[in-house]
This record gives sequence, structure tokens and C-alpha cells, in this order.
Amino acid sequence: MSAAPATGAPAPALPPRPAQLLATIHSPADVKAMPSEWLPHLAQEIRDELIQVTARNGGHLGPNLGVVELTIALHRVFDTPRDQFVFDVSHQGYVHKLLTGRAGDAFRQIRRTGGLSGFLNRTESAHDAFGAGHAGTALSAALGLATARDLRGTGEHVVALCGDAAFTCGISMEALNNVVHATKRLVVVLNDNEWSISRNVGAMAKYLNELSTSPAYNRLYKDIEEFFRSTPRGERLHQIWMKWKRETKDFFVESSLFEKYGLRYLGPIDGHDIPLLVKNLEFAKQSDVPVVVHVLTKKGKGYEVASASPERFHGTSPFDIATGNGRAAAGSPPAYQDVFGRALVREAQLDNRVVGITGAMASGTGLSALAKALPRQFFDVGIAEEHAVLFAAGLAAQDLRPVVAIYSTFLQRSYDQIVHDVCLQKLPVVFCLDRAGLSPNDGPTHHGLFDLSYLRNVPHAAIAQPKNEDELADLLHTALQQQQQPVFLRYPRGSGPGATPKERPEILPIGKAEVLREGTDLALWALGPWVQDALALAERIQRELGLAAAVVNARWVKPLDHELLLAQARSARLIVTLEDNVAMGGFGSAVLETLSDARLATPVERIAWPDQFVEHGSSVEILRAAHGLDPETIFRRIAARLAPPASS
Amino acid sequence: MSAAPATGAPAPALPPRPAQLLATIHSPADVKAMPSEWLPHLAQEIRDELIQVTARNGGHLGPNLGVVELTIALHRVFDTPRDQFVFDVSHQGYVHKLLTGRAGDAFRQIRRTGGLSGFLNRTESAHDAFGAGHAGTALSAALGLATARDLRGTGEHVVALCGDAAFTCGISMEALNNVVHATKRLVVVLNDNEWSISRNVGAMAKYLNELSTSPAYNRLYKDIEEFFRSTPRGERLHQIWMKWKRETKDFFVESSLFEKYGLRYLGPIDGHDIPLLVKNLEFAKQSDVPVVVHVLTKKGKGYEVASASPERFHGTSPFDIATGNGRAAAGSPPAYQDVFGRALVREAQLDNRVVGITGAMASGTGLSALAKALPRQFFDVGIAEEHAVLFAAGLAAQDLRPVVAIYSTFLQRSYDQIVHDVCLQKLPVVFCLDRAGLSPNDGPTHHGLFDLSYLRNVPHAAIAQPKNEDELADLLHTALQQQQQPVFLRYPRGSGPGATPKERPEILPIGKAEVLREGTDLALWALGPWVQDALALAERIQRELGLAAAVVNARWVKPLDHELLLAQARSARLIVTLEDNVAMGGFGSAVLETLSDARLATPVERIAWPDQFVEHGSSVEILRAAHGLDPETIFRRIAARLAPPASS
Repeated sequence: MSAAPATGAPAPALPPRPAQLLATIHSPADVKAMPSEWLPHLAQEIRDELIQVTARNGGHLGPNLGVVELTIALHRVFDTPRDQFVFDVSHQGYVHKLLTGRAGDAFRQIRRTGGLSGFLNRTESAHDAFGAGHAGTALSAALGLATARDLRGTGEHVVALCGDAAFTCGISMEALNNVVHATKRLVVVLNDNEWSISRNVGAMAKYLNELSTSPAYNRLYKDIEEFFRSTPRGERLHQIWMKWKRETKDFFVESSLFEKYGLRYLGPIDGHDIPLLVKNLEFAKQSDVPVVVHVLTKKGKGYEVASASPERFHGTSPFDIATGNGRAAAGSPPAYQDVFGRALVREAQLDNRVVGITGAMASGTGLSALAKALPRQFFDVGIAEEHAVLFAAGLAAQDLRPVVAIYSTFLQRSYDQIVHDVCLQKLPVVFCLDRAGLSPNDGPTHHGLFDLSYLRNVPHAAIAQPKNEDELADLLHTALQQQQQPVFLRYPRGSGPGATPKERPEILPIGKAEVLREGTDLALWALGPWVQDALALAERIQRELGLAAAVVNARWVKPLDHELLLAQARSARLIVTLEDNVAMGGFGSAVLETLSDARLATPVERIAWPDQFVEHGSSVEILRAAHGLDPETIFRRIAARLAPPASS
Repeated sequence: MSAAPATGAPAPALPPRPAQLLATIHSPADVKAMPSEWLPHLAQEIRDELIQVTARNGGHLGPNLGVVELTIALHRVFDTPRDQFVFDVSHQGYVHKLLTGRAGDAFRQIRRTGGLSGFLNRTESAHDAFGAGHAGTALSAALGLATARDLRGTGEHVVALCGDAAFTCGISMEALNNVVHATKRLVVVLNDNEWSISRNVGAMAKYLNELSTSPAYNRLYKDIEEFFRSTPRGERLHQIWMKWKRETKDFFVESSLFEKYGLRYLGPIDGHDIPLLVKNLEFAKQSDVPVVVHVLTKKGKGYEVASASPERFHGTSPFDIATGNGRAAAGSPPAYQDVFGRALVREAQLDNRVVGITGAMASGTGLSALAKALPRQFFDVGIAEEHAVLFAAGLAAQDLRPVVAIYSTFLQRSYDQIVHDVCLQKLPVVFCLDRAGLSPNDGPTHHGLFDLSYLRNVPHAAIAQPKNEDELADLLHTALQQQQQPVFLRYPRGSGPGATPKERPEILPIGKAEVLREGTDLALWALGPWVQDALALAERIQRELGLAAAVVNARWVKPLDHELLLAQARSARLIVTLEDNVAMGGFGSAVLETLSDARLATPVERIAWPDQFVEHGSSVEILRAAHGLDPETIFRRIAARLAPPASS
């Protein structure tokens, strides 16, 4: 009964511990072979590497610091690539990369041109069973992998690693509903750190918190059974108790939410205790029903500045390790998200029907400013983009003026609600799509290059992109004041050209473009950041080709300014369109359609992104050049369209 | 304490009951004023009307027969339009229409040209607080209405009426997570009939069934407290019990799943007992926390053939009332869905890696044939389109060949999974989109007129539409045998031209169109059903204009057959495209883009649907004519493009 230390022969001496443990790990087999006494040292080395690399490259530092021990434990217990790990969002996969042969130079170039992706990627490693970048997909995909295994009849393990926030997302709940029906063997690790990007909201977060902090659940059986046996009529009471347990098992034995869905529940477990994690994962591995292992971790663990500011260090740009301060060049203009946040606060102060809605992205979208200034007019619904848009539709149906701020690619989640609920009912919801264009370091899961194509075909949708920050404030004001229909405003990640918004925003006429430069030989129709490029191009065309190019800030993709476009097309030799969207179905296509319907044969050169997923890279410029969208190539394309080669 | 009937003066005599009660109801006030003794007669009249009208017009008979008493009770307790009802899917809103001033001729023309919509519609009545047609949206939208009310500070009630299947859908769960955070007052009526369209699957269905059938939940408190008080040490035991209750309240007091999300739970309640429904709804109306009223109803109640075949009578075409048999003309070709179902069974028999996935639409998509023939290769995931596609992605990542069968408009739900999970990872998933084109009687929520626009821009997607049933089988075979990428096959609702598939399907070259008629003056590029129209048009063009028109079965929208198109465009005077998709971003746009990129100025006339939501109507022909897509108008458009008016 005593827990005294084992006596007898001393444990065999460990080999001397190498100074650099991480350098000895070339595959998960090396993690398994490592003496367990060394693992805390390995964890420390990994933390040091994570901090060093993200301080230089930026990246998802906080989430990765939180899963160091968990990832080590997973690789001690399971065997990838035979066993398959599916990471939700997969921004927390850096440790997994370090343990699966991707440490060293590749890791040190993570998120940069030619380096590792910041997410898992099936083409990067056989250890990455499924890629991701958006939240809430792991359980569903893992269920697919597990079902394929069952159909094949093989024995490998499938592990889904989900954050607690994944369970605010409907897809996870759809998957949860299907788990028991689909397979008997699936391990779900619930990595509970109470944060998605912002602190989690809603009933699920509260529930998980109670599950974590209440001692009642784990103690219940033991206590009650002991008590019964201690009373005079104990045996009889115990029999009645057992009868109740059978009768009420759905409400008592299966008392956690996960158990209602038929999964076994283990936890909560300290997510920084490797031996405890290993023990529980070993147990889960043997389970003949799907099992949830509820693990409590701390975002930013081991780096004080990160754990003190979990939102700031969820995904960070390069920073100074000692202070945690960002390294952005002083004096660079504020990001679009901040300009938008301030502009929205102003609108919401003027009109209390204006409310802001985000899906766990308050700071990324700039809505944190509204949350602070007018909390009653701010709603964070969690990672629940479908609900966010439907909720906004309900508000708009009651004459409020909801502004939904969701990144361009995440808004793909809400497509049916946009078509079926907002646009079909012509409800005045304003959508603000940040990250429309490139998210260079994040790569293909985050590049917002599709929204013009998927929105343009939806009846009643108005779509605009401002040329600068001031115009964003004007467009937001216009949408809120004048809209009788859904309006979509898109703008890129990061800073604009630095045009501080006016004191009071102006109403801009809907569907009217802005001529920035006159010219009758050709016309450059540009959207957003391309307006600056178009002005420079026009100068060069004048200088080198002797042709006068008009430059138009298109501003509205829908309704497009037909009048101006057709007037120019009747006399110009060429229309050039420039946009941050794929060419298929985008802004340039709208121009083609308009000219075709008007029976004008004016040639159109469409400068847009090709029909492929664009990789990650160190900067917008690098990625533009890699895809023929650098100024030189564009100039040559236009020149070729304007004239056949004159000589040589 | 006794429940004896009241004695004393006899109840005042009722006025004589009119022979036609429904005719006396012009608004919900008339429902409220009606003596409760008459309500069963009203219910019977409503049932008769529902059966008569759907027998003639088709429609969602089963769901409406199930909610007759519930809808009457709702209108006895609440006051629309001040109080707001949000119906999930809203195909069960016929009774609500009958009680809100829409009985009579308008109702008798439901789903026909000029008649009522088969769904709720904000433009049709002030009593329709929010429209719908897709499932799972009610709770979210209702939360928006309730939050708007709270911000405004008014006192009306918001009631969401959801089927049990709505809780297999992630949006409902996203909303559920936000209810308590957003409002204190919301009534959710859970209309539990164990069916969505097919019988429900998954853990939620099982859970609700246990909740409904187990007497434990309602009895628990009463029993346990009585027991404690009856034992010798009763008081002491009772104290300990109370302490446990406090400590474990999350797992005991809040024992239903809805209570975990912070809602009060009432039920289950017999959904055909009007007084009981009224009593519970009155209680719910007073609740100061959001409340779920769990109501058990029977689909098809009161019409034996419908209650015996709930799937068949969920949504029915016109039928014979005595027998329930459909009235479809004998000898008409089988529907595309049935051809597809048989073709898929064949493929799945030949290759056991082929599996079929549907979201509660086994019979509508034709997958019921697979479910019957090869149940291990069939998965119905419930109304969970996001999960369906992600699950397929997981299966495909493990080298299975998943075929996802989801209607064109419902696939909008899966857009992010299509982009981010399937296409980005280039996983070989085959998507089969039935209802691509018009769903005439259903109207704008169901017309599949957007999919070409929202899919065409996604890299790695291949998209095709067969000209007939035989070609559908060939394309399915081609996709499964040759695909190295995602393939989307779209086809219309109902019957094709009747081309019985060959004994063995053929491989069709990917990206190659088929020339059906030669001609050098112009070329008609048609998709799907428009191929037949194009052939007829070409004949008329030859006859009346003396011009030779080529007819091309385009077949692949992506990759488009550039070689053939450019060859024809170099000599033809006009290219005409014909498609069942909106013109913006559709197939015709792909043709414009291709010609523009090749620097060809050949004019293009795009025959496609306009930039608006198309209403419901009695037939494809009627709706085509209403939007300028009848043969005569098309011929005149083409003739006008080919030549200026010659005379008069």
C-alpha cells in the first residue's frame, strides 16, 4: 500500500545527455528511444527554438508553446506516419514538424519563401496526414481517415487534435454527431487552453471550464459508493442506487457532453505533465470506443511575455525576445484593420443600430475597438462563421445595421448564408473582408483570392474595394447610410498607402468609378492596392510607349460603372484590369462580360492571379513576381497587347 | 386537491359551429377567438385542405400534417406579426399560411405560377418573420431577431420552430452555443418526428430518442426526494443529497444536452394535444431564460398513406388521394437521380474503394440504391453538408473514391471545405450535384443557378455537365477511373431526354467537347438540357437565316475545350453559349475569358439566367419564358447578333 521508492539494485545509469537533444531527432523513432528523464530538456530546447524562430519569422508562437509536452507525448505513444495525426487549424504543428525530421534550416525558414509552411501540409511530409489552416476541420477529416481504415480493415490509430474553440464551430459538432455511427476507434485530444485567438465565448467555453474546474465529476462515483456502504442500511441503499444508475444512466453515467455523443471521456489532464499524458494516451489507444482526452494547456507556456498576452502572441509578427515588442518599422501606416475598427466605432456612435459581429477575430479584424468603445453593439460568436452571418441576417431583418467582419477566405464558410439568407432576402448586412488579397507568410489557406468570383454572381450583392484607408471609411459610411441591400467591402492584409481618413467620411456614389488620370489610348481599371501600380504603369507607358493611359479606381466591382467603362472602351485601344483575385470569374471577367453584352470588341488584358493555389512566401512582392505580376512583366504584357513587335 | 369536474352552473352554450371553420379565419386573432372545443374540427379541416391541395400541386405534405395542432397552439399563445416565428426550412409552414390570411385561392395555387411560395417568405406576409428553404437556419436567425428586440428594449416574443434534424446541422449547434450569451428570452420549439427527409442518423437522433422514451428524467427528482424522506436517517441523507446536487449540478440538475447549453428544457410533450401544447407554450412564454419545448409529432398524422411512408410524403409530387400513388405520366424517362443511383451502384460493385455520401438526402439524390445494394459503402451523415465534404476529403486522403451527392444549392454549405480541404489538397472526390438548374415549384432557395460561378474559380476543380443520362454514367465512370483531382458533375432535377445508359460506361476524354452538328457560320455551345434546344435552334437558323450553325455539347466547363473553341471562333461570326446558370461568372464567361486570352474578338451571345433570384413557377418552360429564355426570344437574340435588321 505504501508509495515508497523502489528498493534494490540502482537503475542502470543513463548515457550522458547530449548538449543538443533536438539535433539528435531525425524522426519520431528518436523521440520514442529517448530516455524519459531527458524529455523535459528536450521540451526546453524546443521552446527555445520556437521562440528564436518566431521572433525572426513571426508565426503562431503561443499555441506551439502550449503543446510542446503534448506533442512529445503523442509521438511517444503513437507511430506516425502509420498512425495519423490530424491537427485542427494546424498552426500548432511546429513542434510536430520539429519531431518529424523538419528541424534545422527548413524550420528556421518557416513561413518564408522556400521554407516550411506554417501549417501542416500533405506535400511537405508523410507525417502530415491532413492539411489545414481554417478551424474546426480536424474531427471531421479524422473520421474520414478512421472510416477508410475500418473499411480497409487495418489497425492504425487516428488522432484528432482539436482546440477547445473547435467546438464552437458547427463542423466539429456535425462530426461529433457522426463519430459513433462511423467508427469504434478514434482518439480525440481536446487541447483546452480557453482561447481560440480571442478568449472563447459561449456556452461551450463555459461548459468546458466547469468540466475542468469542478472536482465533482471525477469524485462522484467513488464518494457516493463509499457513503452508501458506510450507512446502516448500506447494502439496500446501494442496490437502489445501482438501480437508479441503470435507469438514469443517460443523465448520470453519461454525464459529460461528449458522452452524450457516445464518446468516452478522459480528463481533465495536465497538458504539461508528460508521464501523465503518456499514461492517458496509452489508455485511449486501447479504447474500443471513440475517446476524448481532455488536456489542459497554457498558451505561451514557458515564455512569460507570451503567456501574459495570449492574444498578441497567438500569431505574431517578428518581435524582440527580451521585451516581446514587435519589430515593425516605426512610422509605417496603421493596418487596414485598425482604420476599419476606428471607422466602425465612429459609425456605431452616430447610429446605435450599427452593430459589429466577428467570429473569434476581434483583434485581427479590428473589431476590438468596437468591443471596447461600445460593448453592447459588439458580438463575438466564436469560430462560427455560418452563425455569424445568419445572426446578422436576423438583426438586419429587424432594422439593425449589422457589420460582419470576417477574413476573405473564412467567409467561404458562410457562402450559403450569404446567398440563401442575406442576399435572397436583400437584407442590409455589411460584410467587411480583411485579408482580401495575399496573406504572404500564411499561404494558400489564407490568400483571399477568390471572393470576387464567388460573390459577384450573387444577385443583390454590391461589392467594392477602396483604393486607400480614407476610401474604406467612406465606403463603410456609404454602405451603412445608403444601403438597401447587402454590401461587401474587401481590403488587403496590413497597411495601405497611408491615407488618413478625413474628419467626416463622405458618401460615395454606388456603382461609380473614379478617374485618377485621363488618357484616351488605353485605360487601366485597377482595384485596391493595384491603383498605385496602375498610376506608375501609366507613367511608364507614356514615357516608353508614348501612349496616354487613363487610370481608373474601379472601386465598385458590382455594380460596375458601365457608363464610364463603355465610354472609354469605345475609343481606347485596350482596357487593362488589375486585381487581387483569380482571373476566373473575377473583376476582369466582369469587364469582359460588360463589353460583350454591349457588343464592344475592345481588347481586355486581365492582370490577375492564375488558376492555381498560390504558395506562401516572404512578401507580396516576391509572390507577385513568382506569378508574373511584377511591374516589369505587367508592362511587357501591356506593351505586347498594344503593338506587334516593331523591330528586331 | 381533487380533480373532479367543476360543479354548479352549466358552461355557457357555445354558438353553433360553422360548417366551414377555416373559412372564418382571416388572421391569427380568429384562431384565438375560436372556442377550444372547435379546434379539433379546425385541425381536421386543415388536414383535409392540405391533402387536397398537395394531391393536386405536390408539396411537403407529411411535415405539415405533423404540425397542425402545434401551429394552432402557437397561434393561440403568441401574436404574430408582433411576435415572430422562425420556421426551420419552412416547408412545414403551410398551416401557418392557412391561419395567417392565406387560405383559399392563394393557398390552392401554392407552388404554382402566381400562387403562394412553398416556403415562408418575408415579401409574402408580415407573419413570415424570416424566410428559409435550407435546413438548420432557424435558431441562428431567431437569435438575431431576439437580440435586436433586446437592444431595442421591446417585449415581443421570438419563437424558433426547429425539426430534430436541425440539430445534426452545425449551424444550429453554433447558434445553440450563443443563445444564453445573447438573450434571456427565446422559445425554441423542437419539433421531433425522428425524420429529416430520410430517418435521422447519428448520436443526436439517438439522444433525442432516449430523452423522449426514458421516463427517468421527469421522474428523477420526485422519486429521489421521496425516497430520502422515507428512510430512518432521511433528513441527514437529504442534506447530503442536496449538497451533492449543488456540487454536481452541471451533471445532474442540468442533465439534458440543452441544459448544458444553458437553456431550460420542457418536455417531451405530445405534439397533437392542443391543450397540453398551449399550457407548455404559455409557460415557455413566461420563462426568463431561453427554453426548449420538446414536442413529439408524427409526420403524415391523419393521412394513413402518408404516415406509413414518411420519406415518400416528405415532399411529394401530385398523387391520388385514395392510393397515395404518384400521378407522373406513365412511360416518362427515369429521373436523373435514379440513373445516377444505378450507375453509382455499378461503379461501387466494380471497385470497393467507391463510397457514396449524402446529407439526409438518400432518396432525393438516388443514393438509396447504393444504401440498399452496398450498405457498407454508403454514408448518410445527416443534414451536415460541411462534414459530408470534409469526411469525403478524409476518405480520399486514404485512397478511397468518395462520391458526394448533394443538391446544387445545398452544396453552397460546403464551399469552404471544397476550396480549403478538397481542392487545395487536390483530393479525388467526385461531387454529384443534382438540381443544377431550375427546381420550378420550390423557387429561389432551390434553383441551382450559381454552382458554375462559385466552382469555376477554384483551382484543381474539374466541372462537367452531361447532355443526357447515358453521358452522366460515362462521366461518373470517367471521374472515378481517371481522376487525379476533384470532379464536379451537375445535372438537372427530374427526367432527362431518356437516353438509357449503355451496358458498360465509357471513358470520356477530360476537357473535350463533342461536336453534334457541323456549321461554320456560327457555333452554339450548349450545356446539359440546352443541347437539345441548341439542335432545334440550329435547324431554325439554317431554315430561316440560311446560316450553318455548329452545335457543340460543351460537356466540360473546366477544363474547357480551348482547342475546339478557338478553332471555331477563328472562322465563325458568332459563338452562342447556353447554360442553366446565372450569366455572371458562368460557362459563357469562361468562353469570353478564353477568347480574350487568345486575343480573338469573335462576338459571344450568352444565353443564361439574369442577375436576379428567379421566382417559383409551375414549370421550367414558364420560368424560361418569364426570363427571356424561351426558344423564340433566344432565336431573335441570335438573329439580331448575326445581322443588322435588313428591312422594315
